[in-house]
Amino acid sequence: MAKKRPVATARKPKVKLSPRDKKTMARLTDVADRVVRAAKARRDPHVDIPSRTLSNVHYSARKKIIEMGNNKNRRKLFDLSQAKAYMRTVLVSSGCKRLLDQGKTTSLRGMYYMLKHTIEGSRENTFDTQNESDTIIEDVEVMLGSLREELHLYAQKKGDLVGNITINDSGFDIDCSRMGSGGYGIPSIVEPEVIKLDRKKCHAKFVLHVEKDTVWQRFNEDRFWEKHNCILTHGGGQPTRGIRRLLHRLHNELKLPIYCVLDNDPWGYYIYSVIKQGSINLAFESQRMAVPEAKFLGLRSIDYDRCELSDDVILAMNDNDRKRAKQIANYPWFAKKRPWQSEIQRMLKNDFKLEVESLISKDISYVTEVYVPERLSARDWLD
Amino acid sequence: MAKKRPVATARKPKVKLSPRDKKTMARLTDVADRVVRAAKARRDPHVDIPSRTLSNVHYSARKKIIEMGNNKNRRKLFDLSQAKAYMRTVLVSSGCKRLLDQGKTTSLRGMYYMLKHTIEGSRENTFDTQNESDTIIEDVEVMLGSLREELHLYAQKKGDLVGNITINDSGFDIDCSRMGSGGYGIPSIVEPEVIKLDRKKCHAKFVLHVEKDTVWQRFNEDRFWEKHNCILTHGGGQPTRGIRRLLHRLHNELKLPIYCVLDNDPWGYYIYSVIKQGSINLAFESQRMAVPEAKFLGLRSIDYDRCELSDDVILAMNDNDRKRAKQIANYPWFAKKRPWQSEIQRMLKNDFKLEVESLISKDISYVTEVYVPERLSARDWLD
Repeated sequence: MAKKRPVATARKPKVKLSPRDKKTMARLTDVADRVVRAAKARRDPHVDIPSRTLSNVHYSARKKIIEMGNNKNRRKLFDLSQAKAYMRTVLVSSGCKRLLDQGKTTSLRGMYYMLKHTIEGSRENTFDTQNESDTIIEDVEVMLGSLREELHLYAQKKGDLVGNITINDSGFDIDCSRMGSGGYGIPSIVEPEVIKLDRKKCHAKFVLHVEKDTVWQRFNEDRFWEKHNCILTHGGGQPTRGIRRLLHRLHNELKLPIYCVLDNDPWGYYIYSVIKQGSINLAFESQRMAVPEAKFLGLRSIDYDRCELSDDVILAMNDNDRKRAKQIANYPWFAKKRPWQSEIQRMLKNDFKLEVESLISKDISYVTEVYVPERLSARDWLD
Repeated sequence: MAKKRPVATARKPKVKLSPRDKKTMARLTDVADRVVRAAKARRDPHVDIPSRTLSNVHYSARKKIIEMGNNKNRRKLFDLSQAKAYMRTVLVSSGCKRLLDQGKTTSLRGMYYMLKHTIEGSRENTFDTQNESDTIIEDVEVMLGSLREELHLYAQKKGDLVGNITINDSGFDIDCSRMGSGGYGIPSIVEPEVIKLDRKKCHAKFVLHVEKDTVWQRFNEDRFWEKHNCILTHGGGQPTRGIRRLLHRLHNELKLPIYCVLDNDPWGYYIYSVIKQGSINLAFESQRMAVPEAKFLGLRSIDYDRCELSDDVILAMNDNDRKRAKQIANYPWFAKKRPWQSEIQRMLKNDFKLEVESLISKDISYVTEVYVPERLSARDWLD
């Protein structure tokens, strides 16, 4: 009954590679060349993979981002405990090469399906779950120093954008001030080959990033971005890499400050932390995704008093919230900042959380007409 | 410590109501007027709410949609077990009136925060959780015969659209053939006041709706909608009401056939069922959301053989899958259709599921270049 998959016939490259694809391709083919070189020299083939454990991650106070250290793990073909991981690494590299050859991209799940098969003459599968291929993809990213996006892999799409900017996406000029209520759906891959940003086509003076799409809809309906000449984005919760990379590019290439409006809870702090410094899991991409200068506009733990909110709109903290808040207070980039320490201490003292939507209890448009404009004009934010 | 919320000062209407808002407003104010009329006549105030239980839902074979029956539940103010629900119903109605008065919309969560407070002189809260207000919002929808969207309430935004159509969103013409890789983010509210569709501005001949954004990205990258002159949408899984309502309008106003490409699993069948007939929970909105003529292109249970897929890409069914498949086979709109019965029986016989992404094992673009074009040209689909 069981059917074997026919061996994939490699298509000839159909496309002209971009300069960046050429660079990535050189790195990918080097993985294969090294197997050949090792074989010819009668050495055991191996790859060295920078270690993605917490112990190999540190915070660079100078660059203000999370960085990876220099620890590497050697993955050998002729080592029973490493052979499978070694072969998977080469397999994923070859899968990415196929994508570049064809000038196509696929999803993480697509790559899993592309590569999943039973090794001939055995009962061993290359991968049994997508988790396994996802992990190897991260290994390949960090081994080659190529972002997943450069390997032509995309993830789920999240987030929308409106505002005073014209973005060129795949050759089309998209005037984001004329997107109505829907907005421009932020793609998963926003690398310069796809998304071109041009200072001359951006009139906005800053980016306002909000946590949730429902809050974004409020800001868009009130045409906040028009009144305040900005760009409005949301990340549907924790922003994807695509969104963070776009914020990074808007900040670095167009020199736009990034202001965040997030919930007053540990999750909101964490979202800010990831936008600002990068994530611990994926420290290797911080350099191209983190925005150390991003500002935290709110909601602040003082807002219960400052905005005269009622007890009707507070949310009780649980043990996990308290634990997370304390952990975040100890992050090196918050630990030495007094304003952040008081912010988090105040939340713990409050012993409640506040969502951005709680401001609706003041007025439907309080957040867009009062809260954010006041913070901006007073330059009142955490850094 | 506990602070009471100041009584909301009703803002004067700022906006000119649209003809539809006027209709909704009349229904909302009637809720209040009936309290007054009852009081003047010394009758006990009540509202009658069409029952949203399964027993009050039936399938209209003529209209081919799920419909609500005529059963109603009376909710009385002077009945200890119903007083709270009655007051909540009136409260939500007044909240919606406020939105219409101000010409604004808010999220379901926003409405919860707008209305949540402790009743003066008591310890009773109007609402303790958002679930409670969401349920009453559905009651108000069905009581007034007004869609949630007409009550100015939106939900989370999901889904993107590209293709040969220019959609007018809030006065802006959005040429969806020039949206690059990102696409136009489908709004939560797509009622005619916001989204205007114009036959003269639509060159597309059909809509291809795919389940997931990652599959949509594949179709968009291959510019399927350009080659096949269509509109391409995705729902990020189970489509939101906004997406279903947009499909309904594209189908009914622009006469476009809707073709669905979903996973070959009970969940995929269910998504199709909801797009086609409406959902049992929200039967009252079927008339304005369901597309009984929508076609199910695939994936089909015969695709394992037909497309010569390998065992590498099949997913095992579990007991719950089997149970769901049998339930769905008994839905009245599938029960009498032989092709659907064999489709579902075949899945149960296969005892495995297939995701759309499994076709990547054939070729990255097999789904866009072979699978869907073949189905379309052979007019090979389930109905």
